[in-house]
Amino acid sequence: MKTEELKERLSFWRKRVEMTLESVLPPREEPGARVIEAMRYSLFSGGKRLRPLLCLLGAEACGGKAEDYLLFACGLECLHTYSLIHDDLPAMDDDDLRRGQPTCHRAFDEATAILAGDGLQALAFELFTHPELERRTSPQRLLRAVHLVARAAGIHGMVVGQMADLLAEGRRVGKEELDYIHRHKTAALIQASVVSGGILAGGGEEEIQALSCYGEALGLAFQIVDDILDLTGDERELGKPVGSDERRGKATYPGLVGLEEARRAAEREVEKALSALKRFGPEADPLRALARFVLTRKN
Amino acid sequence: MKTEELKERLSFWRKRVEMTLESVLPPREEPGARVIEAMRYSLFSGGKRLRPLLCLLGAEACGGKAEDYLLFACGLECLHTYSLIHDDLPAMDDDDLRRGQPTCHRAFDEATAILAGDGLQALAFELFTHPELERRTSPQRLLRAVHLVARAAGIHGMVVGQMADLLAEGRRVGKEELDYIHRHKTAALIQASVVSGGILAGGGEEEIQALSCYGEALGLAFQIVDDILDLTGDERELGKPVGSDERRGKATYPGLVGLEEARRAAEREVEKALSALKRFGPEADPLRALARFVLTRKN
Repeated sequence: MKTEELKERLSFWRKRVEMTLESVLPPREEPGARVIEAMRYSLFSGGKRLRPLLCLLGAEACGGKAEDYLLFACGLECLHTYSLIHDDLPAMDDDDLRRGQPTCHRAFDEATAILAGDGLQALAFELFTHPELERRTSPQRLLRAVHLVARAAGIHGMVVGQMADLLAEGRRVGKEELDYIHRHKTAALIQASVVSGGILAGGGEEEIQALSCYGEALGLAFQIVDDILDLTGDERELGKPVGSDERRGKATYPGLVGLEEARRAAEREVEKALSALKRFGPEADPLRALARFVLTRKN
Repeated sequence: MKTEELKERLSFWRKRVEMTLESVLPPREEPGARVIEAMRYSLFSGGKRLRPLLCLLGAEACGGKAEDYLLFACGLECLHTYSLIHDDLPAMDDDDLRRGQPTCHRAFDEATAILAGDGLQALAFELFTHPELERRTSPQRLLRAVHLVARAAGIHGMVVGQMADLLAEGRRVGKEELDYIHRHKTAALIQASVVSGGILAGGGEEEIQALSCYGEALGLAFQIVDDILDLTGDERELGKPVGSDERRGKATYPGLVGLEEARRAAEREVEKALSALKRFGPEADPLRALARFVLTRKN
């Protein structure tokens, strides 16, 4: 698949994801509506929608119709957005900017931002278990996918990863610990996103296993590139100040092994991701293109 | 059912809930384990386990075996505990004590407490979708119950209720707005707890509807009594200072209508809860006894 064709395809699905998010979270008028406003603010602030796209493309790779799983894909974006809002809080990374805009607690206030994150996590699971989805896959598959994602978002993934990341601040961290952080904080949800698509579409166990390897390697590559961009990226393209990881004493891949070796490590992970897809035909071309794209991204 | 018999029964199931929680969240050794410790700290700090009990008793009222739904019931306690941890945060109610112990952010720190809440919400949905549960009910019922609870925890319940509660602080609030707060912040999850039990056990639509009325009335009674206890309770029994709602300018039921009328309102809601159970026989006796118990509770 050509880069142009992939870009068009991704941009089509990105729009479908955004339309669906808009339809499940319209503005509201009621005493507690401020938290909905804050959820919308962060949800519609120009994310790449990587996780929902991975879910839809994972489903297509296993012969499913992406359209059928839009609600599930949107739930993944809600989970990701909640984690960004909470990570930015003063007690956590204390960031003022995200994607070039004031972070949620800056645009609103801390209490509202905490609740907006909480509300987005609940909304994710509301969407994952939407009756409409049950009709488009089987209830068994749907339950399996939700269970997998809950584990990846919680104490077998994101939450323990973010905890370890905070605990690693300001001290020398070994490769094993950094690997734990990246795998749990970032790779787990990326992996669960593409795997959940495969499960929903009824992929066989070997296909699921292949998507799982792909997703984990892609997630690691993504985080390493993230660390590299924080050092070398363009502030305007990134939407946040460069070098913030270093100033905060964050454990990063280039900090541990140097910029050149970090680049090579990201390339190795992308190679691993591509070779995991060997069993698939052209139906996995978008996933292949996405893996290559991760290496060249600028934000 | 005699009060003594009910107490014994509740205490039996409370122990089963606690044993199950212990088995799904054992202490761990890994870089991010601090958040697990914090989750355990709050989860095992002497809660009444009202929500899991309601789920189990709701299932029994519809002819189910409580034992079959323990994992689901434990998920409800995780949701409730997460909401307490986040409500206590400095940016929210800024409480130092909960059940006579330092609140989670006091015993650990703010970042850990935020993550512990996040992790408990994810764990709740991990438990709700546990493969073991699927075997003990049908996947369709399980999905319906999870969807209902997700709505009650999120933007159709707890989260918007807590937002409205914060926004009401320090200003005069009318009965309609206070009703919105109580219904969303407290009653929604209590209602969903008993209803989910009925759904899991395969209750008919009329039974589900009856449990829904019961749960909403019980939830409102529970919150009114909570407001009353904050004014008149014993600090040692409550495990927190008396009068904190008033000092904080919180909207409360006795603040709006006076103590006597608040007591009568709680009684009226309990009557409503009891009359909603008319269609049930002795299999709903524990639910009846629980409703009466809400009026006499001291903490």
